[in-house]
Amino acid sequence: MENKKITSRDVDFAKWYTDVVMAASLASYTSVKGCIAIEPNGYAIWEKMVSILDQKFKELGHTNVQMPLLIPENLLRKEGELVEGFAPEVAWVTEGGSNKLEERHCIRPTSETMFSDYFQKHVKSYKDLPLLYNQWCNVLRWEKETRPFLRSREFLWQEGHTVRATSDEAEKEVYDMMDVYKWFHHEILAIPSITGKKTEKEKFAGAEYTLTNEALMYNGVSLQAGTSHYFGQKFSRAYDIKFQNKENKEEYAYQTSWGTTTRMIGGLIMVHGDDKGLVLPPRIAPRQVVIIPIGKTDKVMELASKFNKELNDNNIVSYIDKSEKTPGFKFAEAEVNGIPLRLEVGERDLEKDNITFTRRDTSEKIIENVNINIVEVTRLLLDKIQNNLYEKALKRREELTFEAHNLDEMKEILENHPGFIKADWCGSEECEVKIKELKGCKSRCITEDKLIDGKCVCCGNDAKHNVIWGLQY
Amino acid sequence: MENKKITSRDVDFAKWYTDVVMAASLASYTSVKGCIAIEPNGYAIWEKMVSILDQKFKELGHTNVQMPLLIPENLLRKEGELVEGFAPEVAWVTEGGSNKLEERHCIRPTSETMFSDYFQKHVKSYKDLPLLYNQWCNVLRWEKETRPFLRSREFLWQEGHTVRATSDEAEKEVYDMMDVYKWFHHEILAIPSITGKKTEKEKFAGAEYTLTNEALMYNGVSLQAGTSHYFGQKFSRAYDIKFQNKENKEEYAYQTSWGTTTRMIGGLIMVHGDDKGLVLPPRIAPRQVVIIPIGKTDKVMELASKFNKELNDNNIVSYIDKSEKTPGFKFAEAEVNGIPLRLEVGERDLEKDNITFTRRDTSEKIIENVNINIVEVTRLLLDKIQNNLYEKALKRREELTFEAHNLDEMKEILENHPGFIKADWCGSEECEVKIKELKGCKSRCITEDKLIDGKCVCCGNDAKHNVIWGLQY
Repeated sequence: MENKKITSRDVDFAKWYTDVVMAASLASYTSVKGCIAIEPNGYAIWEKMVSILDQKFKELGHTNVQMPLLIPENLLRKEGELVEGFAPEVAWVTEGGSNKLEERHCIRPTSETMFSDYFQKHVKSYKDLPLLYNQWCNVLRWEKETRPFLRSREFLWQEGHTVRATSDEAEKEVYDMMDVYKWFHHEILAIPSITGKKTEKEKFAGAEYTLTNEALMYNGVSLQAGTSHYFGQKFSRAYDIKFQNKENKEEYAYQTSWGTTTRMIGGLIMVHGDDKGLVLPPRIAPRQVVIIPIGKTDKVMELASKFNKELNDNNIVSYIDKSEKTPGFKFAEAEVNGIPLRLEVGERDLEKDNITFTRRDTSEKIIENVNINIVEVTRLLLDKIQNNLYEKALKRREELTFEAHNLDEMKEILENHPGFIKADWCGSEECEVKIKELKGCKSRCITEDKLIDGKCVCCGNDAKHNVIWGLQY
Repeated sequence: MENKKITSRDVDFAKWYTDVVMAASLASYTSVKGCIAIEPNGYAIWEKMVSILDQKFKELGHTNVQMPLLIPENLLRKEGELVEGFAPEVAWVTEGGSNKLEERHCIRPTSETMFSDYFQKHVKSYKDLPLLYNQWCNVLRWEKETRPFLRSREFLWQEGHTVRATSDEAEKEVYDMMDVYKWFHHEILAIPSITGKKTEKEKFAGAEYTLTNEALMYNGVSLQAGTSHYFGQKFSRAYDIKFQNKENKEEYAYQTSWGTTTRMIGGLIMVHGDDKGLVLPPRIAPRQVVIIPIGKTDKVMELASKFNKELNDNNIVSYIDKSEKTPGFKFAEAEVNGIPLRLEVGERDLEKDNITFTRRDTSEKIIENVNINIVEVTRLLLDKIQNNLYEKALKRREELTFEAHNLDEMKEILENHPGFIKADWCGSEECEVKIKELKGCKSRCITEDKLIDGKCVCCGNDAKHNVIWGLQY
């Protein structure tokens, strides 16, 4: 039985996480240090994420492109802060086709460089603007400690890169895309994330400012899942991206970038998963309903097929587990894989004209008459599961959100149970660094909430912002 | 006007090709030698290719996964022929995160290595089989001479990798996937490709045999567009992929791989394009119909919107060009971009209750009454365009297919006009090498046709196979 392999999440959360990744066949380790193989169950989740987000991006006017994987060193070095931020963690190609290269090329850790180089060549006039591009690709960062999906040397992501003629338009883009990430987390992933601005210290290297989407995991640790950056003219000055504006004057263009990655799969696992394995919200589940025939009589099999067809014809993704395994084994397998809803069609149940649904999120069994409107009932149950998962996650987030008025309180919270810590802050990096000394507690984002008591949690001076703090993946 | 930039294809085919790539905004050069940026128009074609092929692969039982980009050198070296074939043209990562690596890693030129390593760890019993995986990703080969889409250091592709318990099943897979590629070329790309087996010399490094899909470009040069390889037990022996078979005996598994790449975009350009630019068959065109309003009266704009909505509601992808450009400019732009069908809705035409269609493939104008069933008429026209493009390409292929009985004839054909050359062959590599000395003419594939005269075109000895020969991209 698969579930035997899973450590309890309350006993050892880190081990529980890895157990779920392996037991649900989401990913496995490879012979390449720090790099995973994303297996069918994991990749199917990514495909669904891609398809939903991609549609949204396109509705907002973006188109997809593909820039090179390799970046020549001189090009990378043009934007100083970006280099500082990324140079220590890139992989360098130094040999190609049996020859030593004249110039090292790094494997993209992110593509601001290549997009800016492209924009420099293609943006001449305000008539060329806006350019609203997005790229689905792999990137590589030479991380020292890695964990499947959460921190992997290579990972998959999308990176949006836009150029606009005015700062107003560009700043609107930054906020609009953060709204997309928030919507995606709340409505699709059932993750009640919070969004806000990063502090100067935590913003993206090279950005004017960074908006972030922060989700709280079951164990109270934060996961940054989606960022949206306003570059203003920083990259356009570094890469010389100028255009003739409507007044016929030369002006540096305004840029943004925004991205989400396969680490969202890690977020799904750690927000919704339980001791039986993965739990997937129906809207992101690649397979939403498993139909398990019990006793393979003609009547059972015909009914299972009929239900399966009706569901699939109505955009509910179901499948019949026709394998030779025992029903108990099939139940456990569907559970560990996080299939939201199970429908048993059994010989003995049918004698009483019954069929049985079982919810993955609550283990609740719902007995229904065989003649119900299967599509309607299933759709209702899937909606209930989706909502329940969101509500549960929201409750957990609220339970694990604490207020702190001074460093001692912060320390106590971090020692007893990590979570989101709301505390006022004076705005100085000095205090931020001091707070980080508490087990690595970092600012997650500046909220738009009122100040708690108007005093910095660290130095006690007048506070500028209310900030969410926490440990992070 | 865009079309001014395009060299005539009969004057300088190579220049014409690059002109079309640039004028239709399919791709552009970058600051990374040998690597292109795939621009929105080019990437949209790739997205449509991916979506059609991916659906087909899934219908046949394959699922998508993602293996690492980097391959440790020792792992690559396990399969001798593969190393020999690829080692001279890979890029090596030797530094990561500021440190020199203990072992070089190459960027994948193809992923047999990583899949085999994965299979070795996951295949234990016949019950685990078959594993039918596919991966959409980027690969890199350190080519010396490059051309957009046709031969690029980095390119996008899909690579299917399967493991099966018997050679029969695996060989069936090899042929089934070649059928998919052939179907895709004939039915979707309107390219009448030919398929067959590669000779020993031209097969994939490490394969038992290779099937290939060969398309003939307008200029008579061949493009290999899709290969399907039977590995038998070659990789399973090198990577120790063993399973317990039904008789409870240990056995090496049977593997296949198959792939197609972004070079198919190059094929589309070179088979269908003309002196006005790109010509896209409707079934692969990301945008099938452009509606151009002439004179922006309410009546014109309402009608354009109505047609646009009706077409889009019926799965025909149309759009209205509402830009400020002149109609003449819009016509030229739609032409250079290869939009299959143009619909003009004009103020003056409407006085006579007329609208005008113009076919991209023939430039034919079709005047219709404004009250026609727009969906039916458009669908019929798109089908006609699709069929005409296929028929035209088939006619060209037939015109450029020549029989040769000896080397002199071969030479004469290659000098007068390259094309597919059908000639019998004794099966010796010696003759193949000699033929290659004729301007680089290579065997494209072994046909299943009858021998022409039973004598080798090169040595005159008894022939074993009828073979298609030709120049290649």
